[in-house]
Amino acid sequence: MQDPIDPVKLDRLAQVAVKVGLNLQPGQDLVMTAPVSALPLVRRIAEHAYKAGAGLVTPILSDDAVTLARYRHARDESFDAAAGWLYDGMAAAYDKGAARLAIAGGDPMLLSGEDPDKVGRANRAMSMAYSGARDRITRFATNWTIVAWPDAAWARLVSPDLSEHDAQRKLAEAIFAASRVDDDDAVARWEAHNEELGRRAAWLDGQNFASLHFTGPGTDLSVGLADGHKWVAGATETLSGILCNPNIPTEEVFTTPHKLRVSGHVSATKPLSHQGTLIEEIRVRFEDGRIVEAHASKGEGVLQKVLDTDEGARRLGEVALVPHASPISQSGMLFYNTLFDENAASHIALGQCYSTCFQGGETMDNDEVARRGGNSSAIHIDWMIGSDRIDIDGLSQSGERVPVMRKGAWV
Amino acid sequence: MQDPIDPVKLDRLAQVAVKVGLNLQPGQDLVMTAPVSALPLVRRIAEHAYKAGAGLVTPILSDDAVTLARYRHARDESFDAAAGWLYDGMAAAYDKGAARLAIAGGDPMLLSGEDPDKVGRANRAMSMAYSGARDRITRFATNWTIVAWPDAAWARLVSPDLSEHDAQRKLAEAIFAASRVDDDDAVARWEAHNEELGRRAAWLDGQNFASLHFTGPGTDLSVGLADGHKWVAGATETLSGILCNPNIPTEEVFTTPHKLRVSGHVSATKPLSHQGTLIEEIRVRFEDGRIVEAHASKGEGVLQKVLDTDEGARRLGEVALVPHASPISQSGMLFYNTLFDENAASHIALGQCYSTCFQGGETMDNDEVARRGGNSSAIHIDWMIGSDRIDIDGLSQSGERVPVMRKGAWV
Ligand SMILES: [Zn+2]
Ligand SMILES: [Zn+2]
Ligand SMILES: [Zn+2]
Ligand SMILES: [Zn+2]
Repeated sequence: MQDPIDPVKLDRLAQVAVKVGLNLQPGQDLVMTAPVSALPLVRRIAEHAYKAGAGLVTPILSDDAVTLARYRHARDESFDAAAGWLYDGMAAAYDKGAARLAIAGGDPMLLSGEDPDKVGRANRAMSMAYSGARDRITRFATNWTIVAWPDAAWARLVSPDLSEHDAQRKLAEAIFAASRVDDDDAVARWEAHNEELGRRAAWLDGQNFASLHFTGPGTDLSVGLADGHKWVAGATETLSGILCNPNIPTEEVFTTPHKLRVSGHVSATKPLSHQGTLIEEIRVRFEDGRIVEAHASKGEGVLQKVLDTDEGARRLGEVALVPHASPISQSGMLFYNTLFDENAASHIALGQCYSTCFQGGETMDNDEVARRGGNSSAIHIDWMIGSDRIDIDGLSQSGERVPVMRKGAWV
Repeated sequence: MQDPIDPVKLDRLAQVAVKVGLNLQPGQDLVMTAPVSALPLVRRIAEHAYKAGAGLVTPILSDDAVTLARYRHARDESFDAAAGWLYDGMAAAYDKGAARLAIAGGDPMLLSGEDPDKVGRANRAMSMAYSGARDRITRFATNWTIVAWPDAAWARLVSPDLSEHDAQRKLAEAIFAASRVDDDDAVARWEAHNEELGRRAAWLDGQNFASLHFTGPGTDLSVGLADGHKWVAGATETLSGILCNPNIPTEEVFTTPHKLRVSGHVSATKPLSHQGTLIEEIRVRFEDGRIVEAHASKGEGVLQKVLDTDEGARRLGEVALVPHASPISQSGMLFYNTLFDENAASHIALGQCYSTCFQGGETMDNDEVARRGGNSSAIHIDWMIGSDRIDIDGLSQSGERVPVMRKGAWV
């Protein structure tokens, strides 16, 4: 039987991860986290990293069965524990110049049958223990990237009607296409893609819109943009000047909305997969930046719980533009994974904003971010509102209306 | 086809690792290193650890293919790099009370075809980066253990004439027998075994021999013992009072020789597997504790290089008594792995001594260890000199001769 995962394309994905995603520099160490199922990709990335002059490549492999053993057998106190020693070690590695690569692709539904209280506590403990390492990543103190592995369990979830072999093959091909490694010259294609994304971001920065206006079936939404917002897309420069692509794939051009200046109503254009639950046909209404009404045809209870997380959970932290022509959108697949789904359509995100989406954001403190309209929250949940039936206009600071997208395509 | 690795015995090995090897305490975290091939054992150990009340179990999995990618593709500078951030993290975990489990069982010949200079430099860099974590292990600052996984590559090396399936089955059964998990009541059997080992050590401590005298074919060797030496065997108490079994299996009762008081000649009774080379029929002569003549029928060049490592490499750091009736000796197998081979026969070790093999050694500094005759070196290489044709006598401080072993059996 044929390998469901094309080895040539897998090798190209590894090459793109090292050359484009990380832009790994000679002598740099590499810390690589991955599910153990992704070992074939881990090995190819290690090879490309060493060929690119890596110092030492250290894989940190996690195993779903070991994670489940904890939920099945550990005593209650275990769920407040986290491997702080490992995350602090990673932070120390970044401080000494190591790059960071994460392979996404475990079973998205792994914990869907477990006690939500335990899942929540374990996530909270992990999130706190990880804060030092995460801080270095979000500040781009080092070069980092995320790529995806077509895990069998993930593939079964995406294509429940196919055999495991066919499902994995379909997911693999979708990942390869979205990651632009389905043909030769993948590195050159990424250069062209980054250039195009950069041009869009520069145009939007030049416009310096006061707000964006989304219209279409079930949607009439005005999203005010933060003062001094900056549009970000594709390649990002680290503090030390290395240009890396933190997400493979990436299609979005995104910035920070003003947390007090969102109004109108909006309908989701795709289901939202949240921690093992599918929330369908979301419709919400904003007043003064705050969600004052929220409905869903399925999963409304979970949605209400999400909105009640904290005050910032009812406000926006991101608005992102993605054309309907994006390869991920064209695949028509729901991936149950934000790395892919957020690149299928224009979207907004509930919760925490990115300080990198401000002019001069690298050196901005939290107070200044808030003063300019940046939202803060413990959550950041992306949520699709674009499609080929949605138009987007920009409103200039003087109130002029400028077409940005028509029927999901850049004008 | 039947699984070459009996799942019931494998589960018992995991249970013994947690209950006997670690004696894991409720609430203790566990750091577990393993080759990725050992995942079935990793998962069972995680389950038993959580059932025993573990806080968090963190596996750190290594992969032979990633290691080989380094030797095949990395630039020269890579071989002086090491993951200090990871080892320092482990040390921090031990300081916070985490236990430590290592699964042995990668391919023993993995690096036998690689550039010895690169292998040596990588080992040295790793050894230096690991010193903080190793220090906590050798001082028994926390409870730790090593168990073995019957890796396929290891099995092929041990039984080159069998099919891979049969070779792995044979190695697995040998590991299970040696680890005393081939029958019910494994934990009770370990209690009895530890008691027997402890009785031997107590008897030898009571004798407080000045030296041991080995005689047999090609061997007439007097091994002086260090002043204030202590015999160690089986379970060991950590600084905080947890009784753990650092090696599964273990058959030896061992102590520190006096580095200046070894004389006579000795012939190895088994080949010595050293970093991918087999050294056969070693014969050496000692004067005043120092090897002044060394021969081997195969691998003599490697042996000479080992002896030239440093001044301490020509002197003894350990003498260990193992009866010929030990299950590992009875298997008649050469394992190419010290965890097993050193438990097949009485042995001596070139190089570094253990400060734990002194009365009051826990609080002894290096100067005091040296003053009492403890040897120091960058190496510690165990080397079999016992068999069913070897007699051992103890010489008391007043010169009396006391029989210890006759034809490889305790008297
Ligand atoms: Zn986004
Ligand atoms: Zn987002
Ligand atoms: Zn020994
Ligand atoms: Zn030894």
